[in-house]
Amino acid sequence: MQIIRHPDEMTAWAKEQAKAGRRIGLVPTMGFFHEGHISLMRRAGQLADQVTVSLFVNPIQFGPQEDLAAYPRNFERDCAMADTAGVTALFAPDAAEMYPAGCSTTVAVGAELTGQLCGASRPSHFAGVATVVCKLFSIVRPDLAVFGEKDFQQLAVIRRMTADLNLGVEIVAHPIVREVDGLAMSSRNTYLAPQQREAALSLSRALALARKRATEGEHSAERLTTVLQDFIHSFPETAVDYISFVHQDSLQHVAEIDAQTVLALAVKIDGKVRLIDNGKVL
Amino acid sequence: MQIIRHPDEMTAWAKEQAKAGRRIGLVPTMGFFHEGHISLMRRAGQLADQVTVSLFVNPIQFGPQEDLAAYPRNFERDCAMADTAGVTALFAPDAAEMYPAGCSTTVAVGAELTGQLCGASRPSHFAGVATVVCKLFSIVRPDLAVFGEKDFQQLAVIRRMTADLNLGVEIVAHPIVREVDGLAMSSRNTYLAPQQREAALSLSRALALARKRATEGEHSAERLTTVLQDFIHSFPETAVDYISFVHQDSLQHVAEIDAQTVLALAVKIDGKVRLIDNGKVL
Repeated sequence: MQIIRHPDEMTAWAKEQAKAGRRIGLVPTMGFFHEGHISLMRRAGQLADQVTVSLFVNPIQFGPQEDLAAYPRNFERDCAMADTAGVTALFAPDAAEMYPAGCSTTVAVGAELTGQLCGASRPSHFAGVATVVCKLFSIVRPDLAVFGEKDFQQLAVIRRMTADLNLGVEIVAHPIVREVDGLAMSSRNTYLAPQQREAALSLSRALALARKRATEGEHSAERLTTVLQDFIHSFPETAVDYISFVHQDSLQHVAEIDAQTVLALAVKIDGKVRLIDNGKVL
Repeated sequence: MQIIRHPDEMTAWAKEQAKAGRRIGLVPTMGFFHEGHISLMRRAGQLADQVTVSLFVNPIQFGPQEDLAAYPRNFERDCAMADTAGVTALFAPDAAEMYPAGCSTTVAVGAELTGQLCGASRPSHFAGVATVVCKLFSIVRPDLAVFGEKDFQQLAVIRRMTADLNLGVEIVAHPIVREVDGLAMSSRNTYLAPQQREAALSLSRALALARKRATEGEHSAERLTTVLQDFIHSFPETAVDYISFVHQDSLQHVAEIDAQTVLALAVKIDGKVRLIDNGKVL
């Protein structure tokens, strides 16, 4: 596996692959890999000839009060894991290479997709994501890119941006990978103390509860939301950021749930660790 | 010369050129060609193997009170002129192909470059320009793109965006092409009645006056501005939008002019036709 630090070097490598007729699959990450990341890399390997993983903790997608400095990092372990997963090139640029002095361009997707859910409490987050992914697509020039469905709103934002800017990259969605007990894998899970880890299960269990009630015939988003809010708050460490039933593509709230509805959840544990999860309920 | 209407078809054509090792030079335009456009096309032909011209009156760079509907068009004449100038492919998409329903992504360059000069009176203009040029670069995949220096701020904005988003396109600046009497060529010149045409000369003459005074030793931007304002307003049809002495790269105002200073002018003729011009004065 090649480790590439400079954007220009990355682009030169990508151009060589294209010249040789090899398809590149990109997996954009912020590192600190877990099974979720590895499954994205394997998926990319099934769909493309060369897998490139970008490892970049993107400062502009963190708000001023968020965990940029504390975000977990372990470069050597990540390299070993990516190598084992069959990654051909690991692109790990410095922030100063990605955002040199004077850099001021932002890519933003409209408020229909970015104003609600995580966008409500993280106002500049999705512009930060769209900007860095647009840059990564220009630098790595992938034929396809694989994103996890755990970041459900991010996926919708990236699909929108890719279509709107004619970026010509196929966006592949990969299902959420979970721990045995149901917790959605996340690099931020390492923040959780044992008692908090238990409270974190409230998210996946709320999804299961919603599925049960929906299957029994309860299709009112409002009534289901009340049930889920009570359930999640029965874990004393939790505070609900949002419980939203939205259309899978438009991300607009729905009153009655159906097969196109996604339940999206964000919960803070002890006011510190913010976890998200989502899934269909019908 | 091939005329291409659909973005996907344009990209397919561009990929073929790349595969054959041919370099593409792009000239983005809004059509209604004059000698200025033709000189950009010829320049692109000197620098690249294939010249692609995009002809698209981009709705999102016009403000609600601006001249989108009235903007002059003559597709057949444009085709003939481009063909004669050696253009290989003319990309002329419909607005509905460029901005399909649901499209909501914007590319914006920071206020340092877009908040002053034309950006002050046209607040969403440069986001419209940056967005469409980003799209055109993705669709046409040029090795280089040629822009006229007449749109001096646009050039700075596009350079910034291209660098910031790692678009990998070489930006080539081409000098202003003028009528015999000095008027900078512009599709909007066709709006001018004879008396207005005379008043329009106030811009290039103001540049000449500034050059004369600067060479004589007047380097104060404030005093030069007063001289130019009085001169331009001696044409009764004129109203100055701005007279600005700015650094050529940063576009920030300077108090004392030097060899890096650009004088940028925008003047409205009879409250309707807005003309711009610019140049070095030292």
